Amino acid sequence: MKLLEEKIIRDGRVLDGNILKVDNFLNHQIDVMFMCELGKEFKRLFMDSGITKIVTIEASGIGVACLTAQYFGVPVVFAKKSKSSNISNDVYSYKIESFTHGKVFNVVVSKQYLNADDKVLIIDDFLATGNALVGLIDIVEQSGAEVKGCGIVIEKAYQNGGKLLRDKGYRVESLARIAAMDSEKGIEFC
Amino acid sequence: MKLLEEKIIRDGRVLDGNILKVDNFLNHQIDVMFMCELGKEFKRLFMDSGITKIVTIEASGIGVACLTAQYFGVPVVFAKKSKSSNISNDVYSYKIESFTHGKVFNVVVSKQYLNADDKVLIIDDFLATGNALVGLIDIVEQSGAEVKGCGIVIEKAYQNGGKLLRDKGYRVESLARIAAMDSEKGIEFC
Repeated sequence: MKLLEEKIIRDGRVLDGNILKVDNFLNHQIDVMFMCELGKEFKRLFMDSGITKIVTIEASGIGVACLTAQYFGVPVVFAKKSKSSNISNDVYSYKIESFTHGKVFNVVVSKQYLNADDKVLIIDDFLATGNALVGLIDIVEQSGAEVKGCGIVIEKAYQNGGKLLRDKGYRVESLARIAAMDSEKGIEFC
Repeated sequence: MKLLEEKIIRDGRVLDGNILKVDNFLNHQIDVMFMCELGKEFKRLFMDSGITKIVTIEASGIGVACLTAQYFGVPVVFAKKSKSSNISNDVYSYKIESFTHGKVFNVVVSKQYLNADDKVLIIDDFLATGNALVGLIDIVEQSGAEVKGCGIVIEKAYQNGGKLLRDKGYRVESLARIAAMDSEKGIEFC
């Protein structure tokens, strides 16, 4: 999506250590009017998929998920991160290792909010190794619901997550796909 | 707001220990179309306040803050919760005790995203003791920005937070105010 690539070039910064800092419009300050445009694009891409629910993960997925969901007219369910090793019986859960934070945590969703009739679009801000997305897909499928696709704002396509999921047959639509990035040379899109 | 009171009666549940469970539309599953109606109401209440930015706190404030912000055409900044005791110089921070989680954490906002020209509306899902809101107000004021008001979805008016803030002169608009609640007798609004 051209609009997003231009925004990343203009407002994003590449830091050492494979970090793309976009916290001025995506994951600390949220440029809400801009996110609405991304939401409309997700709607265009998945309009024929019969989506009944959007699933995301706290915290930085929630904004774009909610602004997208209004164009589908469906609720958002956001998975919670829990450090507790005691997982109750009334939730679906999956253990995830976070690249960004170097920690292990459980992702949990109450069983009440996903069921076998749901057709789910998973929305997240980033896709890199795919750990979080694999966890969300697993949770949705535990419920018997169908994953109709994943809508990602920024994919680090030089990492393995997107390929892994597409190879398994999942539809992954990333609005910007980064082929390479470097704090000196900048960003190259796919 | 009648619509919200009816929703709380219909979908909310009062649990022992002063807990109002509204995670089927507000803070786990988000009824996005319903939240848009709350957003329009916040716009009606604060339309003359010259709002330039909406500030909230992760995670459950983000959805309603983003859906509200689109009616103002302004960005959202969400404060992050940090357990680290090392606070860097490039953030505003405030130490908060959480009633729900029984923990102490720092609330932080990057100095980049608040400045003295901002007129801020603070949005949050709940107001009870007011700890989180006091922290957000403090952070906004550290930046020199002006707090034009606080928009709350549900206020537990039998606790002290709302009174405390109104007594200090802050404008606090809560869309539903609970006078009393009990797992057997149900909910009484102000």
